[in-house]
Amino acid sequence: MQLAKPLAPGAMIGILGGGQLGRMLALAAAQLGFKCHIYAPETASPAFQVSAAHTIGAYTDFAALGRFAKAVDVVTYEFENVPAETAAFFEGRVPLNPNVAALRTAQDRFDEKTFIAGLGIPVAPFAAVAGEASLEAAIERIGRPAILKTRRFGYDGKGQTKIAADTSAAAAWAEIGKAPAILEGYVNFDTEISVIAARGLDGAIAIYDVPENRHQNHILHTSTVPAAIASGIAEEARAIGSRIIAALDYVGVMGIEMFAGANGLVVNEIAPRVHNSGHWTMDACQVSQFEQHIRAICGWPLGGTYRHSDVVMINLLGGDAETWKDLAADPAAIIHLYGKLEARRGRKMGHVNRLTPRQS
Amino acid sequence: MQLAKPLAPGAMIGILGGGQLGRMLALAAAQLGFKCHIYAPETASPAFQVSAAHTIGAYTDFAALGRFAKAVDVVTYEFENVPAETAAFFEGRVPLNPNVAALRTAQDRFDEKTFIAGLGIPVAPFAAVAGEASLEAAIERIGRPAILKTRRFGYDGKGQTKIAADTSAAAAWAEIGKAPAILEGYVNFDTEISVIAARGLDGAIAIYDVPENRHQNHILHTSTVPAAIASGIAEEARAIGSRIIAALDYVGVMGIEMFAGANGLVVNEIAPRVHNSGHWTMDACQVSQFEQHIRAICGWPLGGTYRHSDVVMINLLGGDAETWKDLAADPAAIIHLYGKLEARRGRKMGHVNRLTPRQS
Repeated sequence: MQLAKPLAPGAMIGILGGGQLGRMLALAAAQLGFKCHIYAPETASPAFQVSAAHTIGAYTDFAALGRFAKAVDVVTYEFENVPAETAAFFEGRVPLNPNVAALRTAQDRFDEKTFIAGLGIPVAPFAAVAGEASLEAAIERIGRPAILKTRRFGYDGKGQTKIAADTSAAAAWAEIGKAPAILEGYVNFDTEISVIAARGLDGAIAIYDVPENRHQNHILHTSTVPAAIASGIAEEARAIGSRIIAALDYVGVMGIEMFAGANGLVVNEIAPRVHNSGHWTMDACQVSQFEQHIRAICGWPLGGTYRHSDVVMINLLGGDAETWKDLAADPAAIIHLYGKLEARRGRKMGHVNRLTPRQS
Repeated sequence: MQLAKPLAPGAMIGILGGGQLGRMLALAAAQLGFKCHIYAPETASPAFQVSAAHTIGAYTDFAALGRFAKAVDVVTYEFENVPAETAAFFEGRVPLNPNVAALRTAQDRFDEKTFIAGLGIPVAPFAAVAGEASLEAAIERIGRPAILKTRRFGYDGKGQTKIAADTSAAAAWAEIGKAPAILEGYVNFDTEISVIAARGLDGAIAIYDVPENRHQNHILHTSTVPAAIASGIAEEARAIGSRIIAALDYVGVMGIEMFAGANGLVVNEIAPRVHNSGHWTMDACQVSQFEQHIRAICGWPLGGTYRHSDVVMINLLGGDAETWKDLAADPAAIIHLYGKLEARRGRKMGHVNRLTPRQS
């Protein structure tokens, strides 16, 4: 089921997941006069602090989910590892955006790559891996070096291992926990970029300027806009983003990671949600990716993606957030902290945006 | 008592008042990783929807205020009509910013004008009015036309009446409810402007670019930045703002309304809080007036007031907010709605900021 008409301000938005993305979605929803009800299993979820209501519950507690569905006017999710059966539960109960099929596709790396390749969009060579023997066959076909990833539940470099010249299939298979996997060939690239794309209930598509992303230890470190790529490449990236988001009949914001190199663009993965590499939109654009997502899932027209400034977004991980005194004293830093209690190593605690006047 | 050191993210900020200013303060506090506890008498206060905690209580319920004081790390207020005895109650319990003396000064139009005039800053001719006879004497001295205002609790044109050529003192005195009053002479001006000034715990002062304000029915309609005034006048306005905020040993953001005309600047009134004519800072500046206020009251260094865009802020009053569909479809409108249930005539329901590239 889908919304019959745009939700009026004052409506209650249900968000599955209470981390920083849910929190920033709730803050953006508040700006438009909406209320939010967060559903999350963790007792101290950052999004609870800024929302009108919350439910602490497991994603498989269908009694609690049923009460939640009755209490909200639309449901969305902040991360792609919400169980698909949880998302499917809302069918016939309350509109859910983005749709379940898009969520399922993005949850499984093999399905995802198959879908994207099926659109005629370049991806790395890939093969499904179900055991040691199929891994050996896949390595034979794709060659070394390659990377073995679990099909599901991977993020920030988790659930993956490199197949180097001397890595045995048995060791790699054990390393990822013998879970259903995908082997991907290495892609030579110059630049990592992403496309932050939005699609409205009316089918309209809006795409932000393309950021250039740098990672450290597989975790996003910075996003810089504009990216140091030719304008033709940026245009091609945006066109690819449009094709993917339209093909999924998607409503909301999606992040699409790509590699740009001498041989053009290769899509790495899609995330059916607001994306870390779009956090710079909060301060450099008229409408942030968070407001854009809220607009889309509520049936509003998409907002303007106009970027008024050049910008670098820097993630604050773990102990980085303890530098808040230095950050607070830096007049060029726009600070976003997520209200997390414990600064575990590598945990995303906040980010900083640094604006400079737009150069072109 | 004052904060011994800057509050760390995660601290709880207490806000007296749960209207749109409290709501926007809470949203800004969340961005910096702070939690908010709202104290307000109204059961459906807009700020409750975006805050970690709230207390519904009267401003004279000192038992409830005592519990509130224990639950928070600092207290501020969103409006100047918090009773001064309520603010004074926190002395010795928890730091309060801005200070009680500043609040008292701003609560009484006669004290306010006396204070400003005492700094050698031009104000309209004024006289205290305690009854019909003193009103007649004041009219004799100040001349007609003039304006009679209650000393306390006036805002958006409430509690005031014009003394025209044929207005009798008795009628005017009855009109304002025979409350202690001030008679003010008319000021000829070309432009209404305001200064949005901030002062940190360290005494540092930061002042935003000066907006030009237009009112309709005594309620702010638009603020435009930059104002159409000579740069020397804007500099003078900012200098006056600095003198006032420093003289009050003020910590936080203050709005100072002024008239600009052929005879220079005249200060109209001060508001010891974030100000409607500063709402454009949310989208046109690096750090908004709301974040600036949170930074100041938490002992953080003030943030950058850099303005990246030209901007017009338009208030949405009463039924204006029902045009949300049209606003949502306007790609140049940045929408802020306050989550108020009932759109009473003249009630501030939201505002829109319209950005254009900075021209100078």
